[in-house]
Amino acid sequence: MKVHGRHYRTIWLKVGDARTVQLIDQRALPHEFIVEEVRTVAEAARAIAEMHVRGAGLIGATAGYGMYLAAIESTDPDWLRRACETLKATRPTAVNLAWAVDRQLAAILSAADKVAAARATAAQIADEDADFCRRLGEHGLPLIAAISVRKAGAPVNILTHCNAGWLAFVDHGSATAPIYAAHDAGLAVHVWVDETRPRNQGSKLTAWELAQHGVPHTLIVDNAGGYLMQRGEVDLVLVGTDRTTRTGDVANKIGTYLKALAAHDNAVPFYVALPSSSFDWQMRDGLREIPIEDRGAAEVKLIDGWRDGARAEVLIAPTDSPAANPGFDITPSRLVTALITERGVCAASEAAITALFPEHAVQSR
Amino acid sequence: MKVHGRHYRTIWLKVGDARTVQLIDQRALPHEFIVEEVRTVAEAARAIAEMHVRGAGLIGATAGYGMYLAAIESTDPDWLRRACETLKATRPTAVNLAWAVDRQLAAILSAADKVAAARATAAQIADEDADFCRRLGEHGLPLIAAISVRKAGAPVNILTHCNAGWLAFVDHGSATAPIYAAHDAGLAVHVWVDETRPRNQGSKLTAWELAQHGVPHTLIVDNAGGYLMQRGEVDLVLVGTDRTTRTGDVANKIGTYLKALAAHDNAVPFYVALPSSSFDWQMRDGLREIPIEDRGAAEVKLIDGWRDGARAEVLIAPTDSPAANPGFDITPSRLVTALITERGVCAASEAAITALFPEHAVQSR
Repeated sequence: MKVHGRHYRTIWLKVGDARTVQLIDQRALPHEFIVEEVRTVAEAARAIAEMHVRGAGLIGATAGYGMYLAAIESTDPDWLRRACETLKATRPTAVNLAWAVDRQLAAILSAADKVAAARATAAQIADEDADFCRRLGEHGLPLIAAISVRKAGAPVNILTHCNAGWLAFVDHGSATAPIYAAHDAGLAVHVWVDETRPRNQGSKLTAWELAQHGVPHTLIVDNAGGYLMQRGEVDLVLVGTDRTTRTGDVANKIGTYLKALAAHDNAVPFYVALPSSSFDWQMRDGLREIPIEDRGAAEVKLIDGWRDGARAEVLIAPTDSPAANPGFDITPSRLVTALITERGVCAASEAAITALFPEHAVQSR
Repeated sequence: MKVHGRHYRTIWLKVGDARTVQLIDQRALPHEFIVEEVRTVAEAARAIAEMHVRGAGLIGATAGYGMYLAAIESTDPDWLRRACETLKATRPTAVNLAWAVDRQLAAILSAADKVAAARATAAQIADEDADFCRRLGEHGLPLIAAISVRKAGAPVNILTHCNAGWLAFVDHGSATAPIYAAHDAGLAVHVWVDETRPRNQGSKLTAWELAQHGVPHTLIVDNAGGYLMQRGEVDLVLVGTDRTTRTGDVANKIGTYLKALAAHDNAVPFYVALPSSSFDWQMRDGLREIPIEDRGAAEVKLIDGWRDGARAEVLIAPTDSPAANPGFDITPSRLVTALITERGVCAASEAAITALFPEHAVQSR
């Protein structure tokens, strides 16, 4: 998508220097746009571990490029296996990460020209991610267009939570893909951006990427969405997911469930956009089966922002008060109007999901 | 309630100097406990306008003492009327404020010893506020005790939003009154404290006052409550209100409605504690009739906290992104399990409310 009027992906090979990977250091957003250069697998691992990059799709793509850098350093199989483990250890719960490095390792070990194979596979992983997200946009666009017609072209108001934007993938994003597609098609859209405490990925990342691409938006606190729906100021809710069960239960950033309840109470459609890599085909009951990470008190009590041109933290609570910080919640399928996938839109039910993905019709365990 | 082990109200006459009013400057909480001295009506007006004090009950009590200070300065009726207007102009939407100064003006003008009358009336206003809140505690206590019995003495988990604590009144608070009553009666209680963005009255004030009184509590972001209810970790929700209609629709701090939805979805009782001064006897439809203040973008984009021992603000969004900031939302009566008033507990319906307050059985306009 666009930054300062120019098209960017979140990660790419440097023009004229195919031994250098460039990526956007997201820690500095929205106040600085820093392109970081990564030349070794150790640097790639650090970029993931220290969250210069984040988001399922982008973590996978960065790991893919990390294995390419490892292959440039040495094609010794033991070295490549160690590189694989180094990358996997950075964010142990990220499904796309393990999938990307294992795919790279197999491709490299079986190829004659190992570096060429690693480069091609890294590009494939990134391109596939961007392509899947682009297709989410194609399939989601008609949902927004139908509301636009009903409103006679008045802006379609879309509420989103957290950052399921292009910054979380290689391009387009998941929840944002239909929004960008609608905007680029000339439809009037306006996005209510939940700030998304505790880490504020909404106010820091989603607001920034929408602004850069020229999409009208308004920042709100996470508390405000229910009020806006009560007042008829939200036409649809559109979010991403970290993991969705084969029955359509949706794990997403903490607070998503509250917006789904408000959408249901006010007859506002609630959509979840996801590449099929976010389905967990083994799980049937999101509330009982999906493990929820507790991320510690510091993110709740200390807020990270900018002051006098530099990053700074402020304390917003008594020093001694404990804090709990569950990272995700579960939106049960009954509250989800539909899922938007790269193969099309379907109801959040096992029958509808497996009709679209028949290769998963039988639960594998 | 207790601060550093000693009993405090939020406002009082200085011991040994009845011409000086002392109050807690709440802007410095939770990191500093500052007792401010107020000696003129102008200083009292500034304390209200600049939010050294806030909360319906406390604003009324401060205005009452402000009129007492005005009477010390001069008992000229024109001066007193001007003092009245000065105080009313500080927070024009605060119902208790106008009520308190009008009551004072009438008492002073009709008395022979005007300063003595002003002092007595200021004390009455404060005492009544504390007494009403104490009675909310008495009536709410059995609700908590019943859950405590059902849980065989295991801690009763109570979720609250914003600060409807003793800091918002003269003593006890509204939502906190039953909590303090239960704690003081030896019942095990634990409070989930919503931080309450954008102003963080939960993390700054509620967490502090619970800690000072020794009530176990855990701070959470506003997004987390739904998750906790899904997991069975909330036994009841207990909040205050800025205005409640005669039909039981509840206006309260933005985000309250989302917690009410989650409580309803998980069969968690949702209680609203209020002195009857918070009823609006003229209104029947909260969603259509209660005006909601938009508080401006700065509170959303800039977060106020503490850094290096001083108050500091950090920017958490792109400089140019707009923000909306509705201050309150409406929880419809169908989501309210019961109201806790100074006269007892009743259903959130016009019939039940007016049975408890028969003097308002006929709508006055």
